[in-house]
Amino acid sequence: MTDASPPHPVIILVEPQLAENIGMTARAMGNFGLDALRIVAPKGGWPMKGVRETASNATHVLDGARIFATVAEALGDLHYVLATTARERGQMKRVFGPDEGMAEAAGRLSAGERVGILFGRERVGLSNDEVSLADAIVTFPVDPDHASLNLAQSVLLVAYEWRRAAGRAVLPFLGAMRTGPAPREALISLFESLEADLDAAGYYPPSKRDGMIRNMRDMFHRMAMTEQDVRSFRGALRALTRRPPEE
Amino acid sequence: MTDASPPHPVIILVEPQLAENIGMTARAMGNFGLDALRIVAPKGGWPMKGVRETASNATHVLDGARIFATVAEALGDLHYVLATTARERGQMKRVFGPDEGMAEAAGRLSAGERVGILFGRERVGLSNDEVSLADAIVTFPVDPDHASLNLAQSVLLVAYEWRRAAGRAVLPFLGAMRTGPAPREALISLFESLEADLDAAGYYPPSKRDGMIRNMRDMFHRMAMTEQDVRSFRGALRALTRRPPEE
Repeated sequence: MTDASPPHPVIILVEPQLAENIGMTARAMGNFGLDALRIVAPKGGWPMKGVRETASNATHVLDGARIFATVAEALGDLHYVLATTARERGQMKRVFGPDEGMAEAAGRLSAGERVGILFGRERVGLSNDEVSLADAIVTFPVDPDHASLNLAQSVLLVAYEWRRAAGRAVLPFLGAMRTGPAPREALISLFESLEADLDAAGYYPPSKRDGMIRNMRDMFHRMAMTEQDVRSFRGALRALTRRPPEE
Repeated sequence: MTDASPPHPVIILVEPQLAENIGMTARAMGNFGLDALRIVAPKGGWPMKGVRETASNATHVLDGARIFATVAEALGDLHYVLATTARERGQMKRVFGPDEGMAEAAGRLSAGERVGILFGRERVGLSNDEVSLADAIVTFPVDPDHASLNLAQSVLLVAYEWRRAAGRAVLPFLGAMRTGPAPREALISLFESLEADLDAAGYYPPSKRDGMIRNMRDMFHRMAMTEQDVRSFRGALRALTRRPPEE
């Protein structure tokens, strides 16, 4: 975490089993600007063979990962803990969607609290005793018939929502036009050229001409043409109506 | 897609290479209620060995997948197409985040349009010509230093946002308390019992008693106790203050 970055939540994986899920978790964290990873009792020890292969360029997350023997130790220095779970545990805690949970987390982080989010084992999730260590629950608005989210997929949704809640969800580029919208006089001039060419070509049945012109002008308006678009279209029209050179 | 389900967008993978990404895509689609998958020229043919292993119980998505030779054919019957891309293409199209893109898609779907979302190859994404076949672009608000989203991860974010935009993002359970909040008289009665026991135990220095009582009442109020919580607490208090049986 660089000094310039806002405080981040810590992602805590409890006894993850598959190296590729840990690597994909690191990648998902990196995608949305998280880098603090804790792992409780990784199956097969640490460093784990094969974790780097699926981490893309988020190997800094793996290199900085902290390993703990128990969930209680992994949470020791945190002030607020969310537990992710797919099913009702009969526990009387607040239950958030990932968006609401990350809004709560972002508020606490900016007030100086250290926040962690617990993710359980691939097959069986968190135990009830582990969920019991958390302040509140995060669950996902999945289709009940296909409720099993992959571990790294659930980390991704949390990381994505954290970035949004932290006000950092900026798109990498925008759909800016290279030239501005065409002024109306350029459009009207284009319409008149096109209609004159179509008149010369005998396109319009006289009784339908006015309606056809209005419909075609509507089509052009829906294009929201830029100045460059109008120039391109005029060039294409000139090319189509140019008389072939005399032989 | 069952008759009861609202119209869904179609997910279109262009030349996906890794079986596990296709399986994980199907799983991610299933998680958020999508089931229409099209694949353009899958590397290694179709059915592809190993796709089912990572699909969890979303094998119905794979079984229903339609295979096409070209992107143009895969889009043939659609009315509105979004292309996902991580980088600027210099194309003058609208650029959406996944939330805005799926809001647009949901609106068009409910107006009866068929909508598809294009996802490119794992390493190189979509070609400029393929992006050019789309009406608009979807890109993701990633950290620019770690911008590479896994294929199935980007499908997951789109599926998640579609479910939200379609108004179907219902959490599988809520944090409903098993009993209602305790009425104030039960709380005050608990406070008075506790304070009487602490008086009897000589806990309060007389000069600080009033302040300490107020602070502890504040702690209890922050618990937002239910009726059952009050009963449990009273039972615990009785157990602690019970005289040991005479020997």
